[in-house]
Amino acid sequence: MIALTIKTGYSVSDYLIERIYEEGVRHIFGIPGDYVLSFYNKLSKSPIQVINTCDEQGAGFAADAYARIKGLGAVCVTYGAGGLKLVNSTAQAYAEKVPVLIISGAPGKAERLKNPMLHHKAHQYQDQLRIFERITAASAELNDPKRAYSEIDRVLDAVLQTKRPGYIEIPRDMVLAIPANPEPRKPYIIEVPCPGTPSEALDMAVSMINSSQKPVIIAGLEVERYDLAEKVLALAWRSNIPIAGSLLGKSAIPENESLYMGIYAGVLGLEEVKDYVESSDCIIMIGVYLTDLNLGIYTSHLDPEKLIYIVNERFALGEHEYPLSGFDLLDRLAKANLSWHNPGHIPYSQKVGRFSDDFSSDKKITVTRVFQALSGFLDEENIFLADPGDALFGSIDVSYNCSFISPAYYASLGFAVPASIGAQLARPDLRPVVLTGDGSFQMTGMELAVAARYGLNPIVIVLNNMGYGTERPMLDGAFNDVADWRYSKVPEVLGTGLGFLIKTERELGEALTEAKSYDGPCILEVLLEKNDISVPLQRLGKNMSKSVSQG
Amino acid sequence: MIALTIKTGYSVSDYLIERIYEEGVRHIFGIPGDYVLSFYNKLSKSPIQVINTCDEQGAGFAADAYARIKGLGAVCVTYGAGGLKLVNSTAQAYAEKVPVLIISGAPGKAERLKNPMLHHKAHQYQDQLRIFERITAASAELNDPKRAYSEIDRVLDAVLQTKRPGYIEIPRDMVLAIPANPEPRKPYIIEVPCPGTPSEALDMAVSMINSSQKPVIIAGLEVERYDLAEKVLALAWRSNIPIAGSLLGKSAIPENESLYMGIYAGVLGLEEVKDYVESSDCIIMIGVYLTDLNLGIYTSHLDPEKLIYIVNERFALGEHEYPLSGFDLLDRLAKANLSWHNPGHIPYSQKVGRFSDDFSSDKKITVTRVFQALSGFLDEENIFLADPGDALFGSIDVSYNCSFISPAYYASLGFAVPASIGAQLARPDLRPVVLTGDGSFQMTGMELAVAARYGLNPIVIVLNNMGYGTERPMLDGAFNDVADWRYSKVPEVLGTGLGFLIKTERELGEALTEAKSYDGPCILEVLLEKNDISVPLQRLGKNMSKSVSQG
Repeated sequence: MIALTIKTGYSVSDYLIERIYEEGVRHIFGIPGDYVLSFYNKLSKSPIQVINTCDEQGAGFAADAYARIKGLGAVCVTYGAGGLKLVNSTAQAYAEKVPVLIISGAPGKAERLKNPMLHHKAHQYQDQLRIFERITAASAELNDPKRAYSEIDRVLDAVLQTKRPGYIEIPRDMVLAIPANPEPRKPYIIEVPCPGTPSEALDMAVSMINSSQKPVIIAGLEVERYDLAEKVLALAWRSNIPIAGSLLGKSAIPENESLYMGIYAGVLGLEEVKDYVESSDCIIMIGVYLTDLNLGIYTSHLDPEKLIYIVNERFALGEHEYPLSGFDLLDRLAKANLSWHNPGHIPYSQKVGRFSDDFSSDKKITVTRVFQALSGFLDEENIFLADPGDALFGSIDVSYNCSFISPAYYASLGFAVPASIGAQLARPDLRPVVLTGDGSFQMTGMELAVAARYGLNPIVIVLNNMGYGTERPMLDGAFNDVADWRYSKVPEVLGTGLGFLIKTERELGEALTEAKSYDGPCILEVLLEKNDISVPLQRLGKNMSKSVSQG
Repeated sequence: MIALTIKTGYSVSDYLIERIYEEGVRHIFGIPGDYVLSFYNKLSKSPIQVINTCDEQGAGFAADAYARIKGLGAVCVTYGAGGLKLVNSTAQAYAEKVPVLIISGAPGKAERLKNPMLHHKAHQYQDQLRIFERITAASAELNDPKRAYSEIDRVLDAVLQTKRPGYIEIPRDMVLAIPANPEPRKPYIIEVPCPGTPSEALDMAVSMINSSQKPVIIAGLEVERYDLAEKVLALAWRSNIPIAGSLLGKSAIPENESLYMGIYAGVLGLEEVKDYVESSDCIIMIGVYLTDLNLGIYTSHLDPEKLIYIVNERFALGEHEYPLSGFDLLDRLAKANLSWHNPGHIPYSQKVGRFSDDFSSDKKITVTRVFQALSGFLDEENIFLADPGDALFGSIDVSYNCSFISPAYYASLGFAVPASIGAQLARPDLRPVVLTGDGSFQMTGMELAVAARYGLNPIVIVLNNMGYGTERPMLDGAFNDVADWRYSKVPEVLGTGLGFLIKTERELGEALTEAKSYDGPCILEVLLEKNDISVPLQRLGKNMSKSVSQG
């Protein structure tokens, strides 16, 4: 436990702040309001830095990225007009297992009883709590100082154990309350006791792997969330098994790893990856969620008999289901007596050389070339954030030399720019590069002003194809157009930063070079043809258009 | 009923579109997504125009303003990442009685059963419906074609009758479904049968008014929502009773009416209005909600014995409560035999002449002078929208010659700019003037691009005091600062419109003059001192700071 200097007058808010500090939170995102002002005042005197975003939505996404990297993120807002703006970002954190703590101010307990119509109240005072109960692992209203410590512990424990969001509502008359006889702090249990893998299950898994000719691993979201990359790699190296990624958790295994073959996503992915995986006689899926997008809109053909399926809550060996944590099995497999395999030719995602070698022509820029440029441009000193849309889908076919963050399941547009703020504060040694669409940028892109305020320097690339490019191949109309913005002029509004308008390959190459040497936010507006979409998105659109009208 | 041309293949979506068209909806706000694409396709072929906003939040606020003016507004979004962004704007509509219909696409019924992990899903498929149930008057999932018509009718009836929002979720495999034997359409009942006012209650109310020396009317939100201004004025004129406004529903009675005296809001309002109202021996409150802000943070001193309290659901005469609609009593009072009163000196809010007479000096602009300028500038061809914050509170002391819209109870910042889009589409004959703070503008101000796209021409005035000016007098810290934006440069990003940076009175006068003659969006950035706040906000801050820390 790290000693804090805020022990004097140890109140409910002091305890909450100390607990999140202990768990690694050094920045908290949000916007104050009168119901949470005194808590903000407490925060401003703590070692945790307050990061004001432009809108609460931005705070939610920033805290999400922070949590994906640090293991816990926090957002702090006022009641109603603040908290209810976080429902969407919290839903996304729930869906994608991101441990974000939402702290909301609220009217005081006493004033609620006296006054039925305090501002920021929608319907019933408890509605906000009830709404968050549906999309969090645990929630609490700190309405009794005596129980406040244990309630804070309960919610935080649930968040850390389940990797899902949690919600704490603190009525403003509880912020400074000092519990007289608080309930004792419960021991903090990181993991529930696990009965371990039955030995016949381990034997069966080993036998499935050893008797196979061409095993393959698919690594997913939970490998990232539970920090399992080393174990997965140990398993792969021990038996010389190649690894495919999944869209949700693309960089769970570093994409420059020699056994890595790119993203498996049914027909959405590269055909050679699909062929390799689907012709495998032993598919070891680790931490992969069976979502529509991960499975290529259910175009994947994986024989359940050949599947070893491992996630936190369960595992399956062929058709045998075990309601036990799969991670213990993974531990044992990584140390088991496995035979050495010959994987044959391992497919590999498109890789280009240094982008500057290739991006010197005056050819009109295309979206495919943007991905090739990024694949060469990004290195270990970057962290890459992609918004859902072609920024995400176009990345299926390419590999990057750095971490990749994108909400590839819940898929809320407008995530990436505010997320880059959280990402860089969590990892100040990495420079964020954001790839976003014009539609996504219009939702939250102006949060770039917040990056500027706090001395951050993301490079934001906007794919300007004048609309919702993901939807055009499904069903098009004027409703897929967006308003006209001159994204490259955004630095004029920020009063700082560099803006670039890019029409050719040379301009892209030059802009990336200049952005790399500039220490401040950069925005690169890439002007594309309206219907220029990446090859993976063409494959996606074709498959998704079938689902659009089912009447 | 207006004949529509979309009768061929009369599907669930055709019926829904026809019904909202019948109720006056000509524009629908939102952002498409794959779960709602086929419904958007239907909309695009209907006489209802789709208005794409930058973010769903903007669509929610635009539809809210549209509904405040037209009596029904509609917003249409996709499931999850779309719908859950509307929780806050819907909560506000609930709190302030605004009839907005939320239409959300959703995964098809069939695909839900087959696939537990479709994109945009947070936790359980029904969570979104359950969340909206808490903040709407009625909600429905259209999961059975046979019942779809009657479910649509039920939700719409509730919205229109209660003036609260409603929620309709349409799984994408229901959009084109054609009911074989739909349940018959139920008769549409505008008002529930009302037993009428007991004659002794009418007698008592008449006697309270006639025996008083100095009666006063306070008109509130419901006067606007239920279109009661004429009845209130009839009552006032019949008995020569002056009228005060309330903050929530400021322009319910036209502010240039001769019997109008300005806003009553306890110590938040002008002292002379407070003195007049609180020394009255018969206070007739019509459609006023007893919210904290309406009552001057509970600084109002109104003797219940002297009160006639009339709202839709009930009325009270002194301490006698009647669980009957107060509107019937209002009807009768407006025709009753009332004696003529001598109101004495009626206080009047600050009025200035034509702004151009006074705004020619090089004195540094102050926020007080902005309000004075607006009071002279605004006329019957405008509609004025103010964001919560000083834009709203500073308006307490001044009157405007036009309608005023502001969410003065739920108080969600960032309302006014997107609301101006809905307002101008609802009333194309009126030019919106928006007054907003820098903090509010950063949330949603870029929706100005949407105004530009659809040929609208709001004039947006940003009070740039470098932070949350409403909070500074309560409790200040760096958390009340906002990122640096050059608001006057926003037209550079839009590629159209006029921007002004205003530091002096002359510059304000000139900018307003130029904006008036320019047919496009204008943004006037008014540079204020950090602590320059209006007189009413000073009064508010003093009273609210007491509540901030109650520990």
